[in-house]
Amino acid sequence: MRTYRKRDFPVGEVRRFLEPGPVVLVSSAWKGRMNVMTMGWHMVMETEPSLVGTYIWTEDHTRAMVLKSRECVINVPTVELLDTAIAIGNSTGAEIDKFSAFGLTPVAAKKVSAPLIAECFASFECRLRDARLVRRYSLFVWEVVKAHVAVSPKSPRTFHYRGGGIFMLSGRNVSRRRLFKPEML
Amino acid sequence: MRTYRKRDFPVGEVRRFLEPGPVVLVSSAWKGRMNVMTMGWHMVMETEPSLVGTYIWTEDHTRAMVLKSRECVINVPTVELLDTAIAIGNSTGAEIDKFSAFGLTPVAAKKVSAPLIAECFASFECRLRDARLVRRYSLFVWEVVKAHVAVSPKSPRTFHYRGGGIFMLSGRNVSRRRLFKPEML
Repeated sequence: MRTYRKRDFPVGEVRRFLEPGPVVLVSSAWKGRMNVMTMGWHMVMETEPSLVGTYIWTEDHTRAMVLKSRECVINVPTVELLDTAIAIGNSTGAEIDKFSAFGLTPVAAKKVSAPLIAECFASFECRLRDARLVRRYSLFVWEVVKAHVAVSPKSPRTFHYRGGGIFMLSGRNVSRRRLFKPEML
Repeated sequence: MRTYRKRDFPVGEVRRFLEPGPVVLVSSAWKGRMNVMTMGWHMVMETEPSLVGTYIWTEDHTRAMVLKSRECVINVPTVELLDTAIAIGNSTGAEIDKFSAFGLTPVAAKKVSAPLIAECFASFECRLRDARLVRRYSLFVWEVVKAHVAVSPKSPRTFHYRGGGIFMLSGRNVSRRRLFKPEML
């Protein structure tokens, strides 16, 4: 599978990749073991600091790992990884090593122990900022502490889940810069 | 502008329209006044009950209105409303009546006082479920109590914000039903 060469990206601008709502792959590490989960429920919560909220259910193996490590990497896959993302969602890290089972290449992160996924075009290193909403809402509030984004393509083809086994692929971009007040850009 | 005839839709399945991450229009009402805001930061938080989280900033006129009324309607617009959504985001309900200024047609909701927007293909009536996260995170947790979705088209063209004045339009759908475990559908 294709891997992406990435460069540093401003943490305050990760919304450019997360706000459109793609399915993401969340990687984690704890005591020498790695895991990855597929996630559709997430939102941008702030830009300074750069906060992202994610829903990680009690049944997800990742939940115990990130509660212990307090770190993760949110990776944004392109459509080439669609079937892989489903296979990741159908399996559990309690039983298999998903990186090796699905041919994903872990790459050392700079600030967290969870690995970047080389096959994803963007990877955001996160530290757990707030776990107080976990028990009631399975909501983890993360601070993005380091971001890596591929040099090209500029607008990779992402996939977005509609439920029921149907995915929407990202379509073309349109600019409306001229309609925005400067302070809104 | 085109208006949509909508029919009842199961509240537990609104994720089919929200999880892909479109820009939405949030309508509200309080003491005989209506308002609408444009929103990109939201997430599905649960399906039973049907919970949706939204970020509504202190500077948004909508914030005071929904804190008082504890109700809103989350409307999903199609690309025909792209320029209107930006104009809504550029203005404030403290100064103008956005429904009349932007030619939107309010339609009475069934369970809340906030209006549906006739020009949007889907409208979800919401009651405020939890305001405890508002002060810290501007996060409103809503329960969808009634959902209305247009009979056609099945997959309307939504728009998704990338920041910087750039929008991604939704592209084609692909089915991967065969790859899902039945219990995951």
